[in-house]
Amino acid sequence: MNKKHGKQSIVFASPPQVAAAATIVGPMEGEGLLAAYYDKILEDNSGDQDSWEKCESYMIEWAMSTAVKKSGLTLEDVDYILAGDLLNQLMATHFAIRSLGRPFLGLYGACSTMAESLIVGAILLDGGFGGHVLAGVSSHHDAAERQYRFPTELGVQRPPVTQWTVTGAGAVLLKAMAGNDPRVTTATIGKVVDVGLKDPNAMGPAMAPAAAETLWQHIQDTGRQPAYYDLIVTGDLGVVGKTLLIQVMQEKGLDISANYQDCGCMIYREEQDSHAGASGCASSAVVLCSHLIPQMKAGKLNKLLFIGTGSLHSTTSYQQKESIPCIAHAVSLEM
Amino acid sequence: MNKKHGKQSIVFASPPQVAAAATIVGPMEGEGLLAAYYDKILEDNSGDQDSWEKCESYMIEWAMSTAVKKSGLTLEDVDYILAGDLLNQLMATHFAIRSLGRPFLGLYGACSTMAESLIVGAILLDGGFGGHVLAGVSSHHDAAERQYRFPTELGVQRPPVTQWTVTGAGAVLLKAMAGNDPRVTTATIGKVVDVGLKDPNAMGPAMAPAAAETLWQHIQDTGRQPAYYDLIVTGDLGVVGKTLLIQVMQEKGLDISANYQDCGCMIYREEQDSHAGASGCASSAVVLCSHLIPQMKAGKLNKLLFIGTGSLHSTTSYQQKESIPCIAHAVSLEM
Repeated sequence: MNKKHGKQSIVFASPPQVAAAATIVGPMEGEGLLAAYYDKILEDNSGDQDSWEKCESYMIEWAMSTAVKKSGLTLEDVDYILAGDLLNQLMATHFAIRSLGRPFLGLYGACSTMAESLIVGAILLDGGFGGHVLAGVSSHHDAAERQYRFPTELGVQRPPVTQWTVTGAGAVLLKAMAGNDPRVTTATIGKVVDVGLKDPNAMGPAMAPAAAETLWQHIQDTGRQPAYYDLIVTGDLGVVGKTLLIQVMQEKGLDISANYQDCGCMIYREEQDSHAGASGCASSAVVLCSHLIPQMKAGKLNKLLFIGTGSLHSTTSYQQKESIPCIAHAVSLEM
Repeated sequence: MNKKHGKQSIVFASPPQVAAAATIVGPMEGEGLLAAYYDKILEDNSGDQDSWEKCESYMIEWAMSTAVKKSGLTLEDVDYILAGDLLNQLMATHFAIRSLGRPFLGLYGACSTMAESLIVGAILLDGGFGGHVLAGVSSHHDAAERQYRFPTELGVQRPPVTQWTVTGAGAVLLKAMAGNDPRVTTATIGKVVDVGLKDPNAMGPAMAPAAAETLWQHIQDTGRQPAYYDLIVTGDLGVVGKTLLIQVMQEKGLDISANYQDCGCMIYREEQDSHAGASGCASSAVVLCSHLIPQMKAGKLNKLLFIGTGSLHSTTSYQQKESIPCIAHAVSLEM
């Protein structure tokens, strides 16, 4: 049976399910809108590690181990780990996976990696290649800041359009077995979209066209109108990108304003002054794992379209005056 | 049907096949041992691009487009592109994929990425998620050198144990359809292995234990002894790592000396003074795509075990005095 539908989408024949999910965040996230839902909130940005990068590594390891524990399984039951992060050469991920001791495939989709890992995980399970997949991502504000921008000690003023990289990690344990948990039903795999924007401070506007194209293609391929979903969320378009996506979809004749939100706008309180919202791999991951999946399990949310959004530039590509290629992957979870 | 065999391996139920493969390399590789087999040899390391990074991007785009052309298909027939490279945030890959316009999943397994992309590609096809997957990787000596080590202009002396990052790219077009082409029959997905080595100049010795563990597990899971294969190749262990792998396997009671080679030792001539051999994502990719796959298609090689080897450290992890985590993924191709 061909599970590919339309041009870019997959309809899973035996939808894998979410056995458990876990999150850990930094102190700023712990004072934000979803404070009540995180499994663990660090007291400071170091997490008792001797660098921010090692703290990020600790977070993804903690989130993954905790997701496994919550599911009542052990690491030995996990057939594959799929993960990635924003640090060069996926440093946070690799040092965490080392101690988890399971077969591992590294993924890089920038901030879209949570969606990518769920999709590849569902492909492995629906394809009959195993029973359990652990999928997760991390990001760390200070580690990202000094890698992508400036030393944090410099205190550089941020333009209003910038977003704040989330310090946190989220992990999902997917299972092939049927049950009453949220099912991964469809996926739409994105193309790289580059509309020529070059300002690395304004990633939301750069990513919005990629999100629009993937959402549009998802609708074409699956025949599902936006209203099919109780909620459509993007990963980290932020305030500016979110508004743009609504506008672009409106121009295509689709009104998503009633049931669309962006994870980047769901994490920090107004008074926390994140500027245009949250970003980073963990932006979509901590919202999905702490809030959306539990809401589904509690019967308060039935049909979710989760669109991971990623800005694929590097500091080198910026220095070489290149524009910002972006990607968005969509995955639907349904009760 | 459960396609997982043993602890870390997959036996594909409907083995996907290699429709076509293509390679492009730099001038030094073009004077090496496989000079006669590459599809294209650049006249200089820039490939008429205005940076080495953009040259790398050009190479992967060229290899992918050429693999598609050789197969008699068009890009529109490609359901998914799977690719990655060594540059931060996969810069070479992302800027290439932008113009190819197909659904894309970014992978990072350092120099093991060619094997990783073949495995994920075979999973997609065997799982019924599409008909054609384009898998490929690239690396560029000068781009890698200035990112990981020193500005090339500095002319820093290299220790004898170092390997030379291959300038090149290789791409494989996998198809689900049956035919008389090399079939991807099994895969063994590696764990992250870190034996505590810390010298980033000596990646071969760091990766050899990961290769040993994956090869050992492949034998356990599939019941295939080393002699089952006409040839076992690792990606880029180099002269030192290759010797170590033979020793480690010997200690486990397995003699692989008769049918084992390392791609890192198959690219440069002795007098080219690469020191301990070749490395980089393209090391295994250009040997596989220019030499091994054509040998299989010509009936000169029937059973191949291709083991991608990757060193997963970053410049930051090295500066933070961390050891080098490594990984190896094995995939068998058979006529």
